[in-house]
Amino acid sequence: MAGDLMLLAAISLLSACQQSYFAWLVGKSRKKHKIMPPAVTGPPEFERTFRAQQNCVEYYPVFLVDLWIAGWFFNQEVAALLGLAYMFARHKYFHGYAESVKGRLTGFYWSLVVLIVLLALGTAGIANSFLDEYLDFSVAKKLRKLL
Amino acid sequence: MAGDLMLLAAISLLSACQQSYFAWLVGKSRKKHKIMPPAVTGPPEFERTFRAQQNCVEYYPVFLVDLWIAGWFFNQEVAALLGLAYMFARHKYFHGYAESVKGRLTGFYWSLVVLIVLLALGTAGIANSFLDEYLDFSVAKKLRKLL
Amino acid sequence: MAGDLMLLAAISLLSACQQSYFAWLVGKSRKKHKIMPPAVTGPPEFERTFRAQQNCVEYYPVFLVDLWIAGWFFNQEVAALLGLAYMFARHKYFHGYAESVKGRLTGFYWSLVVLIVLLALGTAGIANSFLDEYLDFSVAKKLRKLL
Repeated sequence: MAGDLMLLAAISLLSACQQSYFAWLVGKSRKKHKIMPPAVTGPPEFERTFRAQQNCVEYYPVFLVDLWIAGWFFNQEVAALLGLAYMFARHKYFHGYAESVKGRLTGFYWSLVVLIVLLALGTAGIANSFLDEYLDFSVAKKLRKLL
Repeated sequence: MAGDLMLLAAISLLSACQQSYFAWLVGKSRKKHKIMPPAVTGPPEFERTFRAQQNCVEYYPVFLVDLWIAGWFFNQEVAALLGLAYMFARHKYFHGYAESVKGRLTGFYWSLVVLIVLLALGTAGIANSFLDEYLDFSVAKKLRKLL
Repeated sequence: MAGDLMLLAAISLLSACQQSYFAWLVGKSRKKHKIMPPAVTGPPEFERTFRAQQNCVEYYPVFLVDLWIAGWFFNQEVAALLGLAYMFARHKYFHGYAESVKGRLTGFYWSLVVLIVLLALGTAGIANSFLDEYLDFSVAKKLRKLL
């Protein structure tokens, strides 16, 4: 089974690196503004960088759940591409937020769009599995027959 | 294998939606109290809502680990039901906390009870797998024979 | 498949317990310093304990991703041992940080080293799976033949 899901695994590793990178940027901002831990308040630029990372942390498990379920129950390649899109949106979000409060919006909205698409694909995939398992009716198989 | 674990996948997707919903409620509370990001301090009602969401974020990966291991190594249906119970407890916790500091307690204790039960089931399931794998002794099989 | 990955499952359950234990220690520190939720500021000792737990929360999903992918695509036993090492480093980190700001460093650096090793093993494992799948070339199999 490992081989079947390696794209999801690769995206997950990449996104874990991105999360660590964001944490490292917060550390860098601490040094720049001379804010010793455990303080988390300081000049606006530091507070924005810190909140940007915190928001990424909050959504990370949600992203992983949506990614894996969409990839596992719907289609791995599509989910992996959406995973890359999510990482790009989070990149925009983080750097936009570090620059200005308004700068966070574009990246944030795109990251939500990707999450909603992953959620929709995951729900469709699970619904199909349910029908297949309990009613012996598979939408995917019917579609394949039709086409 | 996907089909075998679809209840866990469905509960995970639902709980990811709940996490996103809590984050959205914090945003709503921001607007109501006119607290611009990156600030996280303000009137007590906002601070309680924010802390409620933060606490849910902290426990979310713990919940996912307990849910999947209990469902995978012990019993999927039981784990899924406990997952629903956890989501209900977190719902009570969040809205109780948003109303008052004391209001968080009932939901919080229930969420802990559910986590402890999931942990116990997961531990039992893993212990049985260990015995089965290394000592060729399966408690589950013995019980089935007896009953 | 459940049986194949039970060491990873066992380490995940243990680490979930550790995360809950850290959260409980923050609660204990709240009582000691009489800091009612939702406040998260107070005497330095409390703030250090709180930040220590928050940092563990931030890295926990990253750890789980690195652990499972290293264990699944490279070697389960090695990943499980590294998982134990990570938990030990986080234990040092948490208690060191609670005592003093400098006390956090040793544990933190060790936890990063473990994460980097897990990441490297996971990357190697995925790379091998890719080669095997798409180029029908498996480094692992070649090595086994040579030795």
